[in-house]
Amino acid sequence: MKVDVNMADKKAKIKVGIVGGTGYTGVELLRILSQHAAVELAVITSRGEAGQAVASMFPSLRGYVDLEFSDPAIVDLTVCDVVFFATPHGVAMQQAEQLVKAGTKVIDLAADFRMQDLVQFEQWYQQTHACPEILKASVYGIPEINREQVAQAQVIGNPGCYPTTIILGLAPLLKAQNIDFNVPIIADAKSGVSGAGRKANVGTLFSEASDNMKPYGVAGHRHHPEIVEQLEKLAGERVGLIFTPHLTPMIRGMLSTIYVKLSNKLQKDEVYTLYSDFYASSHFVDCLPLGTMPETRSVRASNQLRIGMQVHDNDYLTILVVQDNLVKGAAGQAVQNMNLMFNLNESTGLSVVPVLP
Amino acid sequence: MKVDVNMADKKAKIKVGIVGGTGYTGVELLRILSQHAAVELAVITSRGEAGQAVASMFPSLRGYVDLEFSDPAIVDLTVCDVVFFATPHGVAMQQAEQLVKAGTKVIDLAADFRMQDLVQFEQWYQQTHACPEILKASVYGIPEINREQVAQAQVIGNPGCYPTTIILGLAPLLKAQNIDFNVPIIADAKSGVSGAGRKANVGTLFSEASDNMKPYGVAGHRHHPEIVEQLEKLAGERVGLIFTPHLTPMIRGMLSTIYVKLSNKLQKDEVYTLYSDFYASSHFVDCLPLGTMPETRSVRASNQLRIGMQVHDNDYLTILVVQDNLVKGAAGQAVQNMNLMFNLNESTGLSVVPVLP
Amino acid sequence: MKVDVNMADKKAKIKVGIVGGTGYTGVELLRILSQHAAVELAVITSRGEAGQAVASMFPSLRGYVDLEFSDPAIVDLTVCDVVFFATPHGVAMQQAEQLVKAGTKVIDLAADFRMQDLVQFEQWYQQTHACPEILKASVYGIPEINREQVAQAQVIGNPGCYPTTIILGLAPLLKAQNIDFNVPIIADAKSGVSGAGRKANVGTLFSEASDNMKPYGVAGHRHHPEIVEQLEKLAGERVGLIFTPHLTPMIRGMLSTIYVKLSNKLQKDEVYTLYSDFYASSHFVDCLPLGTMPETRSVRASNQLRIGMQVHDNDYLTILVVQDNLVKGAAGQAVQNMNLMFNLNESTGLSVVPVLP
Amino acid sequence: MKVDVNMADKKAKIKVGIVGGTGYTGVELLRILSQHAAVELAVITSRGEAGQAVASMFPSLRGYVDLEFSDPAIVDLTVCDVVFFATPHGVAMQQAEQLVKAGTKVIDLAADFRMQDLVQFEQWYQQTHACPEILKASVYGIPEINREQVAQAQVIGNPGCYPTTIILGLAPLLKAQNIDFNVPIIADAKSGVSGAGRKANVGTLFSEASDNMKPYGVAGHRHHPEIVEQLEKLAGERVGLIFTPHLTPMIRGMLSTIYVKLSNKLQKDEVYTLYSDFYASSHFVDCLPLGTMPETRSVRASNQLRIGMQVHDNDYLTILVVQDNLVKGAAGQAVQNMNLMFNLNESTGLSVVPVLP
Repeated sequence: MKVDVNMADKKAKIKVGIVGGTGYTGVELLRILSQHAAVELAVITSRGEAGQAVASMFPSLRGYVDLEFSDPAIVDLTVCDVVFFATPHGVAMQQAEQLVKAGTKVIDLAADFRMQDLVQFEQWYQQTHACPEILKASVYGIPEINREQVAQAQVIGNPGCYPTTIILGLAPLLKAQNIDFNVPIIADAKSGVSGAGRKANVGTLFSEASDNMKPYGVAGHRHHPEIVEQLEKLAGERVGLIFTPHLTPMIRGMLSTIYVKLSNKLQKDEVYTLYSDFYASSHFVDCLPLGTMPETRSVRASNQLRIGMQVHDNDYLTILVVQDNLVKGAAGQAVQNMNLMFNLNESTGLSVVPVLP
Repeated sequence: MKVDVNMADKKAKIKVGIVGGTGYTGVELLRILSQHAAVELAVITSRGEAGQAVASMFPSLRGYVDLEFSDPAIVDLTVCDVVFFATPHGVAMQQAEQLVKAGTKVIDLAADFRMQDLVQFEQWYQQTHACPEILKASVYGIPEINREQVAQAQVIGNPGCYPTTIILGLAPLLKAQNIDFNVPIIADAKSGVSGAGRKANVGTLFSEASDNMKPYGVAGHRHHPEIVEQLEKLAGERVGLIFTPHLTPMIRGMLSTIYVKLSNKLQKDEVYTLYSDFYASSHFVDCLPLGTMPETRSVRASNQLRIGMQVHDNDYLTILVVQDNLVKGAAGQAVQNMNLMFNLNESTGLSVVPVLP
Repeated sequence: MKVDVNMADKKAKIKVGIVGGTGYTGVELLRILSQHAAVELAVITSRGEAGQAVASMFPSLRGYVDLEFSDPAIVDLTVCDVVFFATPHGVAMQQAEQLVKAGTKVIDLAADFRMQDLVQFEQWYQQTHACPEILKASVYGIPEINREQVAQAQVIGNPGCYPTTIILGLAPLLKAQNIDFNVPIIADAKSGVSGAGRKANVGTLFSEASDNMKPYGVAGHRHHPEIVEQLEKLAGERVGLIFTPHLTPMIRGMLSTIYVKLSNKLQKDEVYTLYSDFYASSHFVDCLPLGTMPETRSVRASNQLRIGMQVHDNDYLTILVVQDNLVKGAAGQAVQNMNLMFNLNESTGLSVVPVLP
Repeated sequence: MKVDVNMADKKAKIKVGIVGGTGYTGVELLRILSQHAAVELAVITSRGEAGQAVASMFPSLRGYVDLEFSDPAIVDLTVCDVVFFATPHGVAMQQAEQLVKAGTKVIDLAADFRMQDLVQFEQWYQQTHACPEILKASVYGIPEINREQVAQAQVIGNPGCYPTTIILGLAPLLKAQNIDFNVPIIADAKSGVSGAGRKANVGTLFSEASDNMKPYGVAGHRHHPEIVEQLEKLAGERVGLIFTPHLTPMIRGMLSTIYVKLSNKLQKDEVYTLYSDFYASSHFVDCLPLGTMPETRSVRASNQLRIGMQVHDNDYLTILVVQDNLVKGAAGQAVQNMNLMFNLNESTGLSVVPVLP
């Protein structure tokens, strides 16, 4: 087998570093970035796996990625143009200052730069924020809402997977000021098991999670304050949310079924028009024709997000949103943000057809 | 291998007939009834499979069931004490009159005797009801709500799988008149694929339904009017319901996540007390301690139904209900009804431990 | 919900202890034994979970098992009539002497009493055997081969899951001395993921093991010497075996596809007769009619083992054996052994219909 | 959402037609070809779906494929440069003559051009061959074995999925004349369910095929004569083969575990060298380092095929081959053949990283 590594002049390419590449968002970043024409994968770190070939850990990458994991203690990430953090919460904020000073952009796939509300952050993530000033200047990286700010950002807080579906599912209604907040928004969300990460854990063993459906975090999930902060920013007022995540026996995929009361009645074609107009220039958001419902496999392994809508008596609305939790819900959205930050076409390296069946 | 068929005197046993035994509710009835100490499996019919050994179609039954399928055109079902219809909708109502006249009880696992509202029945099932008088005298077979009527019934309409979870999930609140009906009840339900039956169908192929989550019937599902009829009967008033079924990649199992607004605020321990008191004498309903959430595998292959509750600000309630859709949602509940109709202990033949993992 | 614990006089029942009840063989023992009419579950130990209710760890057991885990350091197991070890390898052999002295029988579901060859044991399990004398007197608990010895045993080494299928798949040919050992026996075995246990482990996470098929232990698996020891005992000579286990994306179930060369040609009906005669008095072994192939779900959650056969040119034979790896491959076989040891009908508590679908 | 269809000058591109695009090989061809820089998707036919948008049947294609299905009765396929047949067996051979005459190349993904032995073809496919002369001139499209003939072919018989793994798994040994044919080759193969196609069928329903492992076609599978024909061509002599396919609960993926006796003993490093030398110039075949075993997910959704090897006493060899049955086992290999036939780089449009997890 010939190794497929592009040997073209790499000087003009974006030098990319990945911190913590041994989880699912890490391998997904590698899958996407190794095929991104404008990217040079410069370095990937892992404390535990330093010296090991990445492809020996992830056999899918044999022939496509010939990097080894580097020791984060000795590698200099400031040589990179951008560094992705595919780490647990709390790592990126320790290193952001040094990188930003060196002119290296930061995209954190964990939660360090997702919430401006430090009280909530510290309550849910059980740590003091290491760089509140950088947080203040950072941008919540959801391009369909804030494309321009993303393009100017030095530091991106890449959204959580649940928040991406719920924010994009509600943004058109929020911008149109057509939600009756006297009734709480209900978001009943179903996630594939990869959302729980690649950590050894009894609860996500095959024999526990297969052929089983279960809610979790019903009393409180840390994506709840993140979602509410963004919804309130869009609404300009307090938003009540009941959020129920469910662990679903599939590897990838997320479906959020969202229920809202409208403040002004809408016919079903008006709803469709509202959504499709709102996302007219958003390559990755697909508003399904009325009567069509989305399914998670229709976006598998792609950065696509699809939205279906159902109106009830013109005043309640069910919004159904699907995405691949590892792509639009994590690594794909991160690359979409990178593209904007480096003035590339937003869909560079991301226009792949979903895998079905 | 020795065949395990009980050769004890069969005269005292309940003679059971099954019409249409080639689907999943059929084989599940066989699994349960072949181990039921008070039952003699007398006859099972199938137009297409007459003459074939049941165990050659369902290899799990080899050594446990030695019946052959009989031709429904020539078999006399009135020799049975009770006949289960595990058929498509519309079959039981054609044969009910003859059976009832002969003193044979009828338990229909399809929809013919589920709804008293004939207009709704005819709209959703696209057929005129064949025996409205028998329907009027029939009983909706949900023992935890109407144990006494079931015990007296000649004809049982065995509830649909979704309705079972939603009715039992709401009954304590409805009886306590503590739901604010100004806000619609939302039932976000997730079903295993066996709920769609054993008919050849592209949509339920492994390669379509595996590793995938999708809503269906969002614009209208025929369990909707069935649920509403029962909820309104319990409430004594009109009930608004938004019902979203989802096809979930598991063989068995159903989880309904139900959202209601309370009319009178309740503390979480009051909610638990309300539910556990209501079901104190119901063997198959398990109210989980506060903070514990149910998962479908905890009831796999058993007649158990488990309920978890979560209170939000003391005025909204999330109720989570799990069951095995083929057991408590179909064949198990049918046998539970039979037990009551024949004055047996309600749990005879049904007290098996769920299969986990 | 009423707790279903049998309150009948427990004096006459077999007092059972389980050491290490937090894994899959542990919960499976509980599922079977809690429904076994002749058993009283007296004690279950777990170092890590002492004081916790068993049913809070395994929600499937709510209403069926009301024991708590006991601390193994303080509990006296000699009050039991029999103790099952559902522990890692190396635990049972530390406690066997004390139990045997006290007249308590021992059934070890791990490997401590499976192999008489101490060199092999120490090589594969990396520990010195703690009680070689007890090992010598112990019996390999595969009732279809050595029912009488099992009935007399004080200590049982309960077979591994793979060995059970391969030994029972080959025993009729071995006893008939009709295998040509110039060609190695090939056993290509496929196991459900629960066979790997309930330990947190990256390799058996849902997102690793689902939608994936992989061989493992190709260069050597510790069931290999166990199988060979038993095959050679039956053959009376050296046996060559190539054994390839595969991890298969299902919770339960094992299929071993075995290829052998016959030393004397056989017609296909002769093969069938050989097998069905051999197992005529074995309740749990089902020899399938020619042309019928077994599938794992036909034995799901039951102690059944089914065998199919295919003859090639009358001199090569493919033998296909299925079982539930947690039942006939572990806990069910252990209870079958217990039944024999206590002079009960071999199938007591084990005659349940497999769960299909 | 903007539609991503390349509007560049299409004149220079290869005009491609697909006959029968509603099955899994059809949608997989669309996934690959819609991203192939040198291809213009000109027409796709379906008798049943004429007039329907392809993307309304396969929602994964929304935004990527804007074709409608055409009626095969009225469409002129001779305007195409190449036509893929993703049809049942027997369709391509009816249309091949007309296409070949018009200078249109044909790639049949069914069996019409896989076997030169007409007796076998007619026995296994129950039809007389419609164009034996074209068959004679056609090429079996397995590029790693016959790259040059493929490049010159007008008509390609695209190999079956099982044959691809077994032929490529054995070719190096066969070419080296190092198999002892006194012992039959054993190929124990495991296929994902998508291999059975998208036809409504009880046996491949989710509730039948999930959480289940079963052999099928043990007494005879139509890939058997296809494999043997190719092996004998490579061996130059008669080859005995025992072939056992198994249906495995995964959507995609195939693992063939192959057992052979060597005629000359080989050390394990010699085996590795033999294989890696043989495939040195084959981009899509990856020979794994000794001690590493392949798993199906390592090639998911890609055209990669990976081979592992295990030597036993230097004279028996286990060869383990994985591929994605829909890509290298069907649509991907068909595109690989097309690339060669049109003098493109063999991996054009096929160099995508496998999807893991």
